[in-house]
Amino acid sequence: MDQVYTYESLYAFTKAVFLKMGCSDVDATTATTVLVSADLRGIDSHGVARLSGYVRLWEVNRINATPNIQVVHETPSTAVVDGDAGLGLVVAPFAMQIAIEKAKQVGTGWVSVRNTNHFGIAGYHAMMALEHQMIGMAMTNASALVAPTFSIERMLGTNPIAVAIPAGEQPPFVADMATTTAANGKLEILQRKNAAAPLGWVQDKEGHASTDANILKKEGALLPLGSDREHGSHKGYALGAIVDIFSAVLSGGSYGPWAPPFPAYVPMPENMPGKGLGHFFGAMRVDAFRPAEEFTTHMDNWITRFRNAKPAPGLDRVLIPGDPEREYEQERMEKGIPIVASVVDDLKALGEKLGIAWMD
Amino acid sequence: MDQVYTYESLYAFTKAVFLKMGCSDVDATTATTVLVSADLRGIDSHGVARLSGYVRLWEVNRINATPNIQVVHETPSTAVVDGDAGLGLVVAPFAMQIAIEKAKQVGTGWVSVRNTNHFGIAGYHAMMALEHQMIGMAMTNASALVAPTFSIERMLGTNPIAVAIPAGEQPPFVADMATTTAANGKLEILQRKNAAAPLGWVQDKEGHASTDANILKKEGALLPLGSDREHGSHKGYALGAIVDIFSAVLSGGSYGPWAPPFPAYVPMPENMPGKGLGHFFGAMRVDAFRPAEEFTTHMDNWITRFRNAKPAPGLDRVLIPGDPEREYEQERMEKGIPIVASVVDDLKALGEKLGIAWMD
Repeated sequence: MDQVYTYESLYAFTKAVFLKMGCSDVDATTATTVLVSADLRGIDSHGVARLSGYVRLWEVNRINATPNIQVVHETPSTAVVDGDAGLGLVVAPFAMQIAIEKAKQVGTGWVSVRNTNHFGIAGYHAMMALEHQMIGMAMTNASALVAPTFSIERMLGTNPIAVAIPAGEQPPFVADMATTTAANGKLEILQRKNAAAPLGWVQDKEGHASTDANILKKEGALLPLGSDREHGSHKGYALGAIVDIFSAVLSGGSYGPWAPPFPAYVPMPENMPGKGLGHFFGAMRVDAFRPAEEFTTHMDNWITRFRNAKPAPGLDRVLIPGDPEREYEQERMEKGIPIVASVVDDLKALGEKLGIAWMD
Repeated sequence: MDQVYTYESLYAFTKAVFLKMGCSDVDATTATTVLVSADLRGIDSHGVARLSGYVRLWEVNRINATPNIQVVHETPSTAVVDGDAGLGLVVAPFAMQIAIEKAKQVGTGWVSVRNTNHFGIAGYHAMMALEHQMIGMAMTNASALVAPTFSIERMLGTNPIAVAIPAGEQPPFVADMATTTAANGKLEILQRKNAAAPLGWVQDKEGHASTDANILKKEGALLPLGSDREHGSHKGYALGAIVDIFSAVLSGGSYGPWAPPFPAYVPMPENMPGKGLGHFFGAMRVDAFRPAEEFTTHMDNWITRFRNAKPAPGLDRVLIPGDPEREYEQERMEKGIPIVASVVDDLKALGEKLGIAWMD
């Protein structure tokens, strides 16, 4: 049975953990806000379920709790940020803020980041642009779990892309997607239920179709969006590759199969071609293209028209990207956030280890 | 049987057609270069097979052969271009060139275009950036043929995204993909062969899975990349939507189900919210992020590593995006370009109508 916690109690516990790691109060606040936004928005795999994973990376000195995050290269519309091995949860908002400042000056801002770590949900960072009447973009590379089309080798992470677009009366358009058919978190849910994966999500170590939700532990791989060549997996592969290159080749991060692994027990790859993970952020001022009110009026029209597209028989509505997450957020802010038992146990053990009082 | 023509002869015939339409010599040269690059690169659906379609649009005054293409809004890193209903084949390189000039000045350039038409292959425009040591991007909206996830209504075009990334010794990385499981051109090939489509490419008018390659003529729809919800079609839908918004909502073009149709016999949509189709282009100077030689060296390393990824048993190699098209280009430049009989007939009729001598 899931247990339900308030946003405030999860927030307080998580912030106490980051403070124990040695983060400054400002950084712990930022990291907590980003991390718990995943639980709020229903992306449970990227929230507090990962908290002890971050702590383990800090314990083996792969995460620096007091980083000196710096801009190392820039032009009027671009920058490269070195995250100094800091929490991605802190480095990413720093970098996105620079993209926003550049957009204020010259219309758009684009920031590639090296020497960083897992940044939580991409959507959070993209959405930072919204209050400035800007379109926001965020992407990151990640540990290699995905085989390119025609390959059996894990070469890419699930490399998400998020794009947030402001509207007027309507809530914003917020797409946040792994470039694989299914995110790794979806597989983890099936593992806990001992259930099979749909065909098209994973392959075994010889490249055969598989429904084994545990296949990644047996040298299998996740499949790029599209699943197989006939259904466009070469497109998912290309999208994941673009994210990898923008995030890590542009910045000087470690790319492809050399991306640093999230689990602290997995050894770092040999001969890494760059420093740490990479992210990429973009901000585009809407009024760098047309008057903001014109744009938001047409976005309202776009959203309304698509929301009213004819649903297939038996289905009641067509969704706009961001609808499900926003509905989760409203519901969970009000009624609390359900956490699965194994994560509760993991967090309790983490609290005990660090001497942080548990919530109940 | 296909007939084989040299690049030069297809080029000469095509240019003569554009000149007859009233294009200036410069514009006819540009339009021809872009159009025939599709045939060269093996994307037969977007090359001379569409030539008579452009002529029909010109005949009904939907294409202006002597447009006054203008920048109507700009900031240091952005611009909006009004294509004055010109050929997309001419408007797009104009706009991409502006993106490149802006990138020279401030690191990146981003141009959204309204009041334009079909622009040929997205990859051509993205690749314009390569010789400047820039990353190029190109996208466009198109006539609505694609149903969003959970819908039976055609709301989006096949809305392609192209990204071209320069390397050093290696050939560049060039992704050019429709945001659907299969491009419309793939369906047309099956129609000519009277063959069935794989499940997951299209649905019928009630939203059921279909293998009928002619289903678009029966109110069916193409499916977003991912095919169905379980396999991530909501991601393909979001990608197609982002292309639509960047191309047409940012610029003041006509978006979603109101995008103007390519077939000249299809009436224009009522209550269009903007002018013409929309495109979106980007150029990012590589050395706006890190020294160009560092970047291209790492791109060579990226490409080499991925090309050497372990292939699945029975397959001989893993491809880099752009490999197949480059191989087509080399082969066809040398041995000629095969054109299917129905397209040859169509072009012959077009030549007769316009008084242009045929090639053989």
